Amino acid sequence: MRHRVLQTYDALKREARHACASREVRDLIGELLSQTTELLRSADRAELTSKVDGKRYFAFTRGNRLSRAINADLFAPEPSRWMELVGWMDDGGEMPYDPHQFTRTLYGLAVSFCAAVDLLKDDDQKTPGTFFEYFIAHFFAWRVGVEPETSIQILNVDGQNTRLQTDFVFNLGPSRQKFHMPIKTSSRERSIMLWAHQRLLDGAYGIERFMGTPVLLAETKMDKARREVVEICLPDQWRVYQSYIAKLKRVYYLDLPAAYERLNAEFPPLRVREFGEFFAEWSELAPA
Amino acid sequence: MRHRVLQTYDALKREARHACASREVRDLIGELLSQTTELLRSADRAELTSKVDGKRYFAFTRGNRLSRAINADLFAPEPSRWMELVGWMDDGGEMPYDPHQFTRTLYGLAVSFCAAVDLLKDDDQKTPGTFFEYFIAHFFAWRVGVEPETSIQILNVDGQNTRLQTDFVFNLGPSRQKFHMPIKTSSRERSIMLWAHQRLLDGAYGIERFMGTPVLLAETKMDKARREVVEICLPDQWRVYQSYIAKLKRVYYLDLPAAYERLNAEFPPLRVREFGEFFAEWSELAPA
Repeated sequence: MRHRVLQTYDALKREARHACASREVRDLIGELLSQTTELLRSADRAELTSKVDGKRYFAFTRGNRLSRAINADLFAPEPSRWMELVGWMDDGGEMPYDPHQFTRTLYGLAVSFCAAVDLLKDDDQKTPGTFFEYFIAHFFAWRVGVEPETSIQILNVDGQNTRLQTDFVFNLGPSRQKFHMPIKTSSRERSIMLWAHQRLLDGAYGIERFMGTPVLLAETKMDKARREVVEICLPDQWRVYQSYIAKLKRVYYLDLPAAYERLNAEFPPLRVREFGEFFAEWSELAPA
Repeated sequence: MRHRVLQTYDALKREARHACASREVRDLIGELLSQTTELLRSADRAELTSKVDGKRYFAFTRGNRLSRAINADLFAPEPSRWMELVGWMDDGGEMPYDPHQFTRTLYGLAVSFCAAVDLLKDDDQKTPGTFFEYFIAHFFAWRVGVEPETSIQILNVDGQNTRLQTDFVFNLGPSRQKFHMPIKTSSRERSIMLWAHQRLLDGAYGIERFMGTPVLLAETKMDKARREVVEICLPDQWRVYQSYIAKLKRVYYLDLPAAYERLNAEFPPLRVREFGEFFAEWSELAPA
C-alpha cells in the first residue's frame, strides 16, 4: 500500500493543480511536515564527509536506503515554527522574520519531504521535484496574490493559436511586473535552460516583461559509496549565460552555494540570494 | 574482463581525443564494425510494435538484456559498404553515393555499436553518447578538413582570459564559415539546449558567425515491458525556439522523424535533413 506520506503528497498535487495558494495546500504541507518528521525520527542519521567549505551535511538512512544530503545548519523542522508561519500567512502584513530564518524554515520543510521519499522509494527524482515545484509556488502565489500559469499564448501572425508550455509564470496584471519562475531541486549541467527559457519569453513578450527569478533547493551531490558531499557549481558558465543569453533578475536558493553567492560581486550583475530574501524585497521587485 | 568491443571503444576514444579525423580512428571504426557485427550475430532479434507511422523497428536481445530500437529499413551494416566508404574517403572527391544510402551506412555503423553496448552493460547511456560524438565528428572533420575544438575564447574587457566549454565547433579559417555542431543520440526534452548554445555563440561572436548544424541519431523511445516504440517529437516547441532563441541552419538526423521533416514546409525556416545530405551540400554551406 502506498505510504501515507505519498498519499498526502497525492492529495497535495491534486489540490495544487487546482489552486497553489489555497488553504487546502497549506494544510497538506503542515500534514506532510508531521508525517515526514515522524518517519525521519524512526530513521538513523548517517554522518557524511562534507567537501563543501563551511557546510556540514548528514543523511537519513533506513534499511539499505540512504537519503540525499541535508545541510545540518539549515535543518531544523519544528512544528512551532510552522504554526508561527501559518499565523503570519493568515494575517498578511510584513514578514515578521529574519529572511535567513524564513529560508531555514522552508528548507526544513522541503528537504524533510525529499529525504522521506528517498527512504521510501528507489531513485525517484520526479516526486521530490514535483513536490518542490508546488511547495515553492504555494508561498510565492500566496505572497503575490495570483495563481501561476504553465503555458502562455504566443503571437502568431499566420492566425494559428499557439500556446507555449513554460515553467511557472505569475501574471500580476496589466500594469504590474510579471514573474517567470522555474523551480528545480538543482540545476546542475542543465542550468543553461534557465536562461534559454528567459530568452524565449524576452523574445516573445519583450525584454524583461517577465522577470526571471528561478528558485532552487541546492546543488549538492553525494557519492554514496564514499558518503562524501560536493556542490556542483559552474559560476563562469553562469556569467557567460547572463552576458549572452538573457538577464535573470534573481536566482534564489534554499541552500545557497558559496560559489554562486560570490557572483553578487562580479560582472555581469547577477543577484543570487536565499529565497527568504524574496519576501523582504518583493514589493520592490513588483511595485503595486 | 572488459569485452573487446569496449576495449576497441577505449582505443577509439584515446585516438579521437588526439585527432578525430585520423586514419587510426577510421581503422578503429572498421574494427568496431566487425566486432559488433559478430556480437549481434550471436544475439536474437526481438520484434517490436512500432507506433511510428511508416517505420518498422526491432531490437537485439541476449540473456535478459534488450537493446535499443533499431530501424529495420535503415539497418544494413555490410562490411563491403564500409570498404567502399573508406575507399572514397581515401581518394577524396565528390560523394559517389546517394545521400540516403550514405545515411543508411552511417546509421548501421552507429546503431550497431549502441546496440552492442546495450547488450553488454546495464543502462549505460554515456558510452553510446560519447562514441556517437566521435563517430560523427570523424566524418565531419574529414570532410571539412579541420579538427573540432570543444572550447572557445570569450572576449572579456576586464582582461581575464575566459574560455567557454562548448559542443564541437569547427573553425575552417578566417574567411570561411565556422560550424557549431552538438552531437547527441537524441534531443528529447533537452532540445532547447541546442538553440541556447547557438544563441550564446551568436552573442559572443556575432550572429551566425558559427553556423548551427546539430547531428542526432534518432528520437525513438521504447517501452520495454510492452516492447513498443514511439518517437518523442516536439515540433511546435522547435518552431518557437527557432523564432525566439536563435537560428539553426540545419538539424541532421540518421533516423529522421517525420514530425521534424514536416518542419521543412513550415514557418520559421528550419531545415531538418538526413545527415548524408551534408556531404552533398557542404560546399554550398561552407564555400571555399
